[in-house]
Amino acid sequence: MQRIHISRLPEHVGERVELAGWIHARRALSRVTFVVLRDATGLAQIVVDEAAVELQPETVVDVEGDVVASEQAPGGLELHAPSSPFSRLPQGRRRSSCAGRSLKEQLPTILDHAAVALRHPRERAKLELAAATIDGFRSALDGLGFTEIQTPKLVATATEGGANVFPVDYFGRAAYLAQSPQLYKQIMVGVLERVYETGPVFRAEPHETARHLAEYVSLDAEVGFVEDHRTVMGFAREAVAGMVDGVRMRAAAAVDLLELELPEVPDQIPVVHFADAQELLEELTGDAVVGELDLAPAHERALGEWAAHEHGSDFLFVEGYPMAKRPFYTHRDRATPAFSASFDLLFRGLESMTGGQRLHLYGDYVAALAARGLSPEPFAGYLEAFRFGMPPHGGFAIGLERFVARLVGASNVRETTLFPRDRSRLAP
Amino acid sequence: MQRIHISRLPEHVGERVELAGWIHARRALSRVTFVVLRDATGLAQIVVDEAAVELQPETVVDVEGDVVASEQAPGGLELHAPSSPFSRLPQGRRRSSCAGRSLKEQLPTILDHAAVALRHPRERAKLELAAATIDGFRSALDGLGFTEIQTPKLVATATEGGANVFPVDYFGRAAYLAQSPQLYKQIMVGVLERVYETGPVFRAEPHETARHLAEYVSLDAEVGFVEDHRTVMGFAREAVAGMVDGVRMRAAAAVDLLELELPEVPDQIPVVHFADAQELLEELTGDAVVGELDLAPAHERALGEWAAHEHGSDFLFVEGYPMAKRPFYTHRDRATPAFSASFDLLFRGLESMTGGQRLHLYGDYVAALAARGLSPEPFAGYLEAFRFGMPPHGGFAIGLERFVARLVGASNVRETTLFPRDRSRLAP
Repeated sequence: MQRIHISRLPEHVGERVELAGWIHARRALSRVTFVVLRDATGLAQIVVDEAAVELQPETVVDVEGDVVASEQAPGGLELHAPSSPFSRLPQGRRRSSCAGRSLKEQLPTILDHAAVALRHPRERAKLELAAATIDGFRSALDGLGFTEIQTPKLVATATEGGANVFPVDYFGRAAYLAQSPQLYKQIMVGVLERVYETGPVFRAEPHETARHLAEYVSLDAEVGFVEDHRTVMGFAREAVAGMVDGVRMRAAAAVDLLELELPEVPDQIPVVHFADAQELLEELTGDAVVGELDLAPAHERALGEWAAHEHGSDFLFVEGYPMAKRPFYTHRDRATPAFSASFDLLFRGLESMTGGQRLHLYGDYVAALAARGLSPEPFAGYLEAFRFGMPPHGGFAIGLERFVARLVGASNVRETTLFPRDRSRLAP
Repeated sequence: MQRIHISRLPEHVGERVELAGWIHARRALSRVTFVVLRDATGLAQIVVDEAAVELQPETVVDVEGDVVASEQAPGGLELHAPSSPFSRLPQGRRRSSCAGRSLKEQLPTILDHAAVALRHPRERAKLELAAATIDGFRSALDGLGFTEIQTPKLVATATEGGANVFPVDYFGRAAYLAQSPQLYKQIMVGVLERVYETGPVFRAEPHETARHLAEYVSLDAEVGFVEDHRTVMGFAREAVAGMVDGVRMRAAAAVDLLELELPEVPDQIPVVHFADAQELLEELTGDAVVGELDLAPAHERALGEWAAHEHGSDFLFVEGYPMAKRPFYTHRDRATPAFSASFDLLFRGLESMTGGQRLHLYGDYVAALAARGLSPEPFAGYLEAFRFGMPPHGGFAIGLERFVARLVGASNVRETTLFPRDRSRLAP
């Protein structure tokens, strides 16, 4: 007999089928005992006799039975007259925590025991959200003529001048892990005009916060022949809309299970200038923030609430961050040169994307590096793109785990990260 | 006026349009001068007056002109009466090597100057092949119920016991770059049954060969509830067929430009057992190979030629490699325990994929680690998956760059790698 997945049971009512999976839970009622079987596609209730009660949670089993409609069963179906005893693999372990409505353990315990904790349906649903999000990002950009690239993670130069990089022993000489594909994706605009990459980036974050990781998945895009950063924001809007569409289309079961309300992505995401945002924040919060160079997390949350209330939007672009806090490749705003032609996207009050227009003239790069005391020599392979012709261009980067955290309302990005890495965590 | 891409010119014959891109080449004939413009979608010939002759190759320009049918022009269309002088960005550089039929420089020079060399249409075509290949891999596995995952590249344990790993200074303690997602994708079989990952892997290869890199893109899959490694080979066949279909459907222009003959993937890829392959090689080559533990590159080529001649196939599975050369998680062949339930896939005579069935019982792992003198302690997070229930499972890994190298007939994998990394190369 050919094993079928649990999701296909409705097609086989009245037939005998073979299922395979893990013992998810057992329930003994006064007159009947149930075993709940779990596979990649769902849960199935099996009416069993006493023999099967011996089976421990997470044991892998293979069982034949008759598919019977039952109003009381989850999903309206259950398996009767199972092959007895179940055919099963020998297992040594005698407890599991996967069967409750949600995991009761504290986050560090869940992360320490990821190999089993991830089997919980709610944990699995978050993985399905992440996969659908990344697929939606790619689909949206594929549709706009972007080409996917994979750029190296072992690099000779710290992208942003040396902070927060992991040193690598590279055949006895110094190398670093790439903090972003920034320099490479810009080079590739000179080759393919529109490129994206979905891959790991590495930040040696010295502090442990609920929103920083030492390694995360960055969804990066870069596009040539733009007018200014507003053109880039248009592409960024399409990428985010694609991500939400991807979740809606490909992860509907996960959305249901987690009872999520998916955001609408407005055709025009509201935009506020950094300077105006600061004035607004002084009104909203009473805090003195005008003149500061960045937004504090609490102030991002306040702006997120304002955008929801004022514009009915879960998303808000903040544009024109001060040049002083932006990296060397950032383009100035033409009208107000102390401010940059860059932006962040707040998603439900959390910075989930950074982007902007980049410099595109060789001379501007030489000047920008000099102004920061950086030698141009380590950047030679990058600067070569600009010594030849480069069009006005820009791009953006979205942290996958942060985005999914916002989707599910997780307060800690580790809750939506597969095997997170931070200062104190390197395993499993 | 809204810029259009060159690929859209046929829709605008008789109209005035705006193009933007790079000066690809200039050609002065006796009566007329042409400029060839390049954008992400192709090349366009522009009939110019003397003023435009000043434009240097790779200058970024923006030009309006009338679309005119012309039998002599490449593609049958050219641009007349261009806006003059072209609107252009200031550029400092005065030479380029991108306009010839192929790049004439030696590989190291091409790699050193990747920012410009990649702009050559043939180089660009290889990037389009790579993107289509990876997309085809994902589509094939999505269609078979696999879920995409992203696993950490910073790890505490060398996957295969310590050889060829890059050490990382991880907040003052030792970490390594992952040589593969092997342990993580196995853990995830316990969660999602069928998973894949497309991401970088890192190997500190001490030798510089034409087929090894220090960093490459690995297309990894792992699947649960298999009978044996033959089930895994069935999935591997589907993945490879998807990759070739992806190229056929999404990179047709690149295939034409590079004049490639795409391989057919047989419904049943021919299979030869390792021991039989050795006997065959003794017949074919006269070399004494029976008893060796692996196949030499020359012998893989000989087997590739044999498969093409005997089976009309560009692909050949070699199964049952000796256990002695396979990693600790490898499952033995049930019938002949000195041989493994594993396989390689030769594509046109080059090993392009490795796979097999894995151990799935906790006790077997404890024994396998002990037999290799490895402590189980660093593997605790991995072994936990097996202490709970794990089904029979297996998987495979395909090197993206090697696969594309075989597609285009490149003799060195660096020719199909974006910014390759090896012992002597860390930039650009």
